[in-house]
Amino acid sequence: MDTSPQLRHVLTAMADKEPTQLPTPSACVADFCLVPIGTPTASVSAEIADVQRLLKKSGIKYSMHSAGTTIEGPWTECMTLIGQCHSLLHANGVVRIQSDIRVGSRTDKRQGFEDKVKAVEDLLAKDER
Amino acid sequence: MDTSPQLRHVLTAMADKEPTQLPTPSACVADFCLVPIGTPTASVSAEIADVQRLLKKSGIKYSMHSAGTTIEGPWTECMTLIGQCHSLLHANGVVRIQSDIRVGSRTDKRQGFEDKVKAVEDLLAKDER
Amino acid sequence: MDTSPQLRHVLTAMADKEPTQLPTPSACVADFCLVPIGTPTASVSAEIADVQRLLKKSGIKYSMHSAGTTIEGPWTECMTLIGQCHSLLHANGVVRIQSDIRVGSRTDKRQGFEDKVKAVEDLLAKDER
Amino acid sequence: MDTSPQLRHVLTAMADKEPTQLPTPSACVADFCLVPIGTPTASVSAEIADVQRLLKKSGIKYSMHSAGTTIEGPWTECMTLIGQCHSLLHANGVVRIQSDIRVGSRTDKRQGFEDKVKAVEDLLAKDER
Repeated sequence: MDTSPQLRHVLTAMADKEPTQLPTPSACVADFCLVPIGTPTASVSAEIADVQRLLKKSGIKYSMHSAGTTIEGPWTECMTLIGQCHSLLHANGVVRIQSDIRVGSRTDKRQGFEDKVKAVEDLLAKDER
Repeated sequence: MDTSPQLRHVLTAMADKEPTQLPTPSACVADFCLVPIGTPTASVSAEIADVQRLLKKSGIKYSMHSAGTTIEGPWTECMTLIGQCHSLLHANGVVRIQSDIRVGSRTDKRQGFEDKVKAVEDLLAKDER
Repeated sequence: MDTSPQLRHVLTAMADKEPTQLPTPSACVADFCLVPIGTPTASVSAEIADVQRLLKKSGIKYSMHSAGTTIEGPWTECMTLIGQCHSLLHANGVVRIQSDIRVGSRTDKRQGFEDKVKAVEDLLAKDER
Repeated sequence: MDTSPQLRHVLTAMADKEPTQLPTPSACVADFCLVPIGTPTASVSAEIADVQRLLKKSGIKYSMHSAGTTIEGPWTECMTLIGQCHSLLHANGVVRIQSDIRVGSRTDKRQGFEDKVKAVEDLLAKDER
């Protein structure tokens, strides 16, 4: 979300009068953990691999870890991609899917997901001096 | 997601060849818990009231509980609304917002959020007979 | 967590020297959504009913909604109960379970889960005057 | 949770008669994202660094990523540690804290958080052959 005074003025007025016409945030970091339900086995690695392949094709910046996958970009793009991951698994035969999404947006600065880790690591590095 | 055999065939082909062109699910239940960060007080009730007013104006089906708010509708509509809640609070001066979203989609039946509670309550009611 | 000056002094010293000996919070509100993985069907209502029966027997204050169940009490009691819900379903044959827990603690006041909803509803009620 | 037939028999009986006496799972993977509320700035890196220092002192296996920190161990140990992270920040003056925890347990095999990533990466590696 741009924070120029003019745009802020417009957004504040819109927030008051027409909040359902507001744009979604222009940047966010979203981390999602997708769980297929009613699959024959307790393994989910095949489904998660399908998700990774879709993310790779999409061109979005992403990073998988053991408890989910983090993506960053405009709100609409991130949420559309996660929805497409649901659709992809549905198309592959998974009848029910539950995801947990942690999503953050901020207007004070642009911060990618790698910056967040670095900010903490910089603080911890000072401990060792 | 429609499950007619023809549409399923198209979606399966698309999932294989062009997954980034897949539609998002036509129905979902999304429960979100929004947390403003860097606000002067530990109270968040003013922000949550703003969210409720936006949801009311939007016309979506929603239900607030103590740990979040549940909405149901097409994936894109639900996720756009949650993004607009972020934008609304940003426009009101909150610089950083973190939300947790639990979102589920299924292809075997239409199930609204009230149906989910009822299915469990029906089972529990049998205990008392 | 008690906030008497004496206790706060002890806790601050402990936080600095022996953080792994700190007590857990004396009060929290925890909302959890439990998902069984690798079950034969996409329905989870039988498992959620089992969870509700355990909570009822436990005597804890709880409230089920469509996206989870909210409990309140001391941290250790709440987390032990959620762990027992996992063990209960494992004992019933579910091999894998994933839960999402939203848990909050605060030191400025005691606030139960019903108080949180009331604080927002009071604000919204003023709109109608 | 041990799955020897004898222990399973005991646990199943306990689940039926005395579920509130069940042990919590002997192993789990828990990923948590902790958010301080009502802090003067939108930055949370100082608080997250405090959390990392506590985890290091505890001796638990842990891994920080941009959307949280993953730990693995017995349920009670993991949940106690996350509670101590809340207490540590409370002792440091943060009045309110909200955490999102994704926690999984399974009885079919021991699987650490690194194994989960490896299982997916092994599948993706086959794509490149």
